[in-house]
Amino acid sequence: MYTLHIANKNYSSWSLRPWLVLSAFEIPFAEQLHPFPEKGAWEAYRSFSPSGKVPCLQDGDRVIWDSLAIIEYLAEHHPHVWPSDKTARAWARSAAAEMHSGFQTLRNNCGMSCGVRIALHNISPALQKDIDRIDELWSQGLQKFGGPFLAGENFSAVDAFFAPVVFRAQTYQLPLGKAASEYLQTMLALPAMKTWYEAALIETWREPAHEKEVFDAGKLVADLRN
Amino acid sequence: MYTLHIANKNYSSWSLRPWLVLSAFEIPFAEQLHPFPEKGAWEAYRSFSPSGKVPCLQDGDRVIWDSLAIIEYLAEHHPHVWPSDKTARAWARSAAAEMHSGFQTLRNNCGMSCGVRIALHNISPALQKDIDRIDELWSQGLQKFGGPFLAGENFSAVDAFFAPVVFRAQTYQLPLGKAASEYLQTMLALPAMKTWYEAALIETWREPAHEKEVFDAGKLVADLRN
Repeated sequence: MYTLHIANKNYSSWSLRPWLVLSAFEIPFAEQLHPFPEKGAWEAYRSFSPSGKVPCLQDGDRVIWDSLAIIEYLAEHHPHVWPSDKTARAWARSAAAEMHSGFQTLRNNCGMSCGVRIALHNISPALQKDIDRIDELWSQGLQKFGGPFLAGENFSAVDAFFAPVVFRAQTYQLPLGKAASEYLQTMLALPAMKTWYEAALIETWREPAHEKEVFDAGKLVADLRN
Repeated sequence: MYTLHIANKNYSSWSLRPWLVLSAFEIPFAEQLHPFPEKGAWEAYRSFSPSGKVPCLQDGDRVIWDSLAIIEYLAEHHPHVWPSDKTARAWARSAAAEMHSGFQTLRNNCGMSCGVRIALHNISPALQKDIDRIDELWSQGLQKFGGPFLAGENFSAVDAFFAPVVFRAQTYQLPLGKAASEYLQTMLALPAMKTWYEAALIETWREPAHEKEVFDAGKLVADLRN
């Protein structure tokens, strides 16, 4: 059986992606949650992850240590992780890879914190550009493949790749167009997303660096966490 | 036939990766080189690339717009793009994905410029950390799979993913251990790498932002470009 190493569900956007793929496709796995370490103690993560980062998948002797590599590893065994249609699959992989290496401003300015609601102080041009590109990309996928998921009728890995953006959009009330907003609701209603969200809310860890990043971004509207 | 859209060979680290996979595996493709646009003119790239970035692959009606997505697309048709051994493939994908989303300091402080040689002003702790991780990762792959390439006897996509680091290491004389240094020479001797390098040297475009980034990093030792 697979073991997936993840960090705090409230904060860890990278962990969410493979966790969601495993959960949504009902692939059996054991979850090992390692709360983010105190400052400077990242070396502790090296005991299970070669890069010292989460997520990290163990499959017997094999260790796969990046969210996208984990998803490609799972896709070799589990059909439908990527869309079965070749054009949809090429689009899905392009969009997921764009997310994997990009959207730095969105990531830095709108740190994931599932359980809080923030009114942003301002939206810089760089952040607006990232939001516009998310809106464009989601709208394009929904239109091209018919929705309600990004690459068509069924949830696939590209949805998992944008799942952290879904939580960020909810937390910071990011301005999105109609199609993207409907997609947001589709994703928030997904059973695996709800399971993750509920687990995030009852976490009691508060990691100072993440807390500061989130609260510095705007005015606190609500903190729904335990 | 595939068309691969790329930017300047001297600078464009992302373009190098799929170009090298196509070239090393002798997969026929047409190359479309678009020199980096003047400041603010990135919109021009949107005429061929949905994200406005290079590289971008066209295959008939399909457009695949990220280096890693392009490589996965090619891997569906062309055996050996990833290693055939499952453990080596999982390792290769993990290492390539770590490169795809990480090593920000190395990327920012040591911009790719194939044809120049720079003595770095200093190596910050963050840059040293990235260099140490490169050294560790390369050494691990070479030891685990027997070399001379990262995932074993044959060149594969993980080597393409680190090819820009090979040129950066040559440009900035990055300090690497014995195994990593030998791998560097193996890569520099690869015919497709030599073809790219020679094409980079004869380019006459000088893009101000890239030039500044490179020359700000240290003292110019040599400029071998046309």
